[in-house]
Amino acid sequence: METINKSVYYKLKELKDNAGTHSPSINTILENIPEIDLRIDACYLSNPYATDLFISHFDSDLVKSNKLREVLEFYPSQNNNISYKLGDFLDIDHENIFIGNGAVEIIQAVIHNFSKRIIVNIPTFSSYYEFAKPDQEVIFYQLDKNDNYRLDIEDYIQFVKEKKPDTVVIINPNNPDGSYLTSEEMEVLVKELKDVKNLIIDESFIHFAYEEDSLQMIKAVDFFRENKNVIVIKSMSKDFGIAGIRAGYAIMPLEKRNYLLENGFLWNSNGLAEYFFQLYVNKNFQLEYDEVRRRYIRDTQKFYQDLLVLPGIKVYPTKANFVLIELLNGMSSFEFVSKLLIEYGIYVRTCDDKIGLEGQFLRIGSRTFEENEQIVSSLQSILTI
Amino acid sequence: METINKSVYYKLKELKDNAGTHSPSINTILENIPEIDLRIDACYLSNPYATDLFISHFDSDLVKSNKLREVLEFYPSQNNNISYKLGDFLDIDHENIFIGNGAVEIIQAVIHNFSKRIIVNIPTFSSYYEFAKPDQEVIFYQLDKNDNYRLDIEDYIQFVKEKKPDTVVIINPNNPDGSYLTSEEMEVLVKELKDVKNLIIDESFIHFAYEEDSLQMIKAVDFFRENKNVIVIKSMSKDFGIAGIRAGYAIMPLEKRNYLLENGFLWNSNGLAEYFFQLYVNKNFQLEYDEVRRRYIRDTQKFYQDLLVLPGIKVYPTKANFVLIELLNGMSSFEFVSKLLIEYGIYVRTCDDKIGLEGQFLRIGSRTFEENEQIVSSLQSILTI
Repeated sequence: METINKSVYYKLKELKDNAGTHSPSINTILENIPEIDLRIDACYLSNPYATDLFISHFDSDLVKSNKLREVLEFYPSQNNNISYKLGDFLDIDHENIFIGNGAVEIIQAVIHNFSKRIIVNIPTFSSYYEFAKPDQEVIFYQLDKNDNYRLDIEDYIQFVKEKKPDTVVIINPNNPDGSYLTSEEMEVLVKELKDVKNLIIDESFIHFAYEEDSLQMIKAVDFFRENKNVIVIKSMSKDFGIAGIRAGYAIMPLEKRNYLLENGFLWNSNGLAEYFFQLYVNKNFQLEYDEVRRRYIRDTQKFYQDLLVLPGIKVYPTKANFVLIELLNGMSSFEFVSKLLIEYGIYVRTCDDKIGLEGQFLRIGSRTFEENEQIVSSLQSILTI
Repeated sequence: METINKSVYYKLKELKDNAGTHSPSINTILENIPEIDLRIDACYLSNPYATDLFISHFDSDLVKSNKLREVLEFYPSQNNNISYKLGDFLDIDHENIFIGNGAVEIIQAVIHNFSKRIIVNIPTFSSYYEFAKPDQEVIFYQLDKNDNYRLDIEDYIQFVKEKKPDTVVIINPNNPDGSYLTSEEMEVLVKELKDVKNLIIDESFIHFAYEEDSLQMIKAVDFFRENKNVIVIKSMSKDFGIAGIRAGYAIMPLEKRNYLLENGFLWNSNGLAEYFFQLYVNKNFQLEYDEVRRRYIRDTQKFYQDLLVLPGIKVYPTKANFVLIELLNGMSSFEFVSKLLIEYGIYVRTCDDKIGLEGQFLRIGSRTFEENEQIVSSLQSILTI
């Protein structure tokens, strides 16, 4: 390492040591170490082509037509009014739809209001256990590393029946490993778990999954229709590339949705989120979106194939828009992530803070075709030294 | 009334009857009755000059400089990071600052998490009692109509000491009447109520209040510094004219703030709210803002004086950016509001749904100088028929 790089490495190390169990965010890093030249942020898990699409609509619908003022000045519609518009599009009664200030607000609302004893599969998205209050019990179900963290449905069902939780959470595809349960497997799971009060199906990454070569979009709405315990949670941040807007929704039983609305959440959307939802339910927009969705999946498939052949790492199978990588070359994940950031300007996520992951892991988001190529060649340089 | 107007009136009546105790929103009205020509929305309680100022910055900082993409694509900073930036500006430890997705989210969080028995002065902003869950007790303190709904401090303190709530709420200036407690009065109140666990001071309209001809801005931060039970809640929607963005903050004791952050609310800001807070703490922006704030107060003073001389109404004293008006001419407030909307294109708020208001009341927001003049002359036409 050159001198400049060494000093930057120690600064990074200091930031990380001060950040506790979490990794410092890229903004914190850039503010504290301005000499870092960030070129690709592959921590972010979103479709960049969908962001392009959204921005082109935003430009023509709001900026160029001077309607931006309305969106910024006035109160957005209430939760119930926005869900009304989504209902038609999703073919679900709007009284089963709850609009969230990002999916994470919905996770918080559901756990705080409906759960006492919750089973969470690890590794996972940490909010599902971090938001539990002191009087709420979290039971971890460890996914099997030897089976690539894939959920063993039979074993899981038995575990649930033993532990008798009121809430279980299935993230599909799962974060951070990308493992995917097919619609058929989900059907078995939902049927067997019909006595659990709340069956949360988090579909934040479902638009990146596919079961056929045609890349047809997968949807879980039908599980909801037939099972009164299902709560589908859907982030819009990942598939539409608009994390800054904070938009998500859930499909849930009427009495739960109404309980939440009677206790708050009336004005939890912002003007841009409301504008986004108007776009979302527009058929022409959906056609345009489906094109950038398929393009992104194909790029991600290529990215995955390119990573597979690199030496010194294990690449876990994924149907999400990111890849879980285990380092087998003796480097720690922090060391690897630092090298990649300092020498190549590429930021990826260490998985140091993920409970349930044994080993040195990174999670790398798929970006544009060109960026993915840069990521692969940078990884190659580090791994083949 | 002409035929067209009569038919529109009946449509409005039907909408209102279907909306229950609440009034239909202007969006619902316009969607259902497109023949209405809305010219001025004086339901909104915000400074339109501040919206102009914000939009000019938004244009140059984000749209013209192509930084908009960052704001839309990426996750905003976490609550703690945004509060860090506010802390310096407010000269308050950032660990006492909680960022909200609008003030209303903070009201919900505080009531749900810290209150069992809450005293709410009526008339008031309905969220303070509507968000209470079944196991939370709300005790109403009726403000005296004969004293223009002004809080009688002595009587109130006695009431609180008798009822022994864990939470009291003071909105200053109060909504919907605009009555104002001076800093001196607030000091007495805060001192006498030091044993109440949570003393919520809602300052959503404080930037429109003044005690001197110089229109110096009033702030309650000092009450917080000296009293460990004070929770200051501040909406940004009204004074900065950006309700669509959803930005608010609270100043509260460290242990309450940390309890909330440990149980959610980590990513509750959106990219535009974070951008707004960056502007908010900028000294040059504050200088520009103070100019439009003073200009708006002067326009509102003129508006109030013009309303005072109209016949058939009582105009309540206000230090907010709205005026509570009682109809004394025999018209119902719904009839009056409908006439104003249908014949003059001006929408104002009926106060039919406000508990604690006896009589026929309207609340009219102050808009631009020219719009206020139109409102006054339209009211005059209706009232002098």
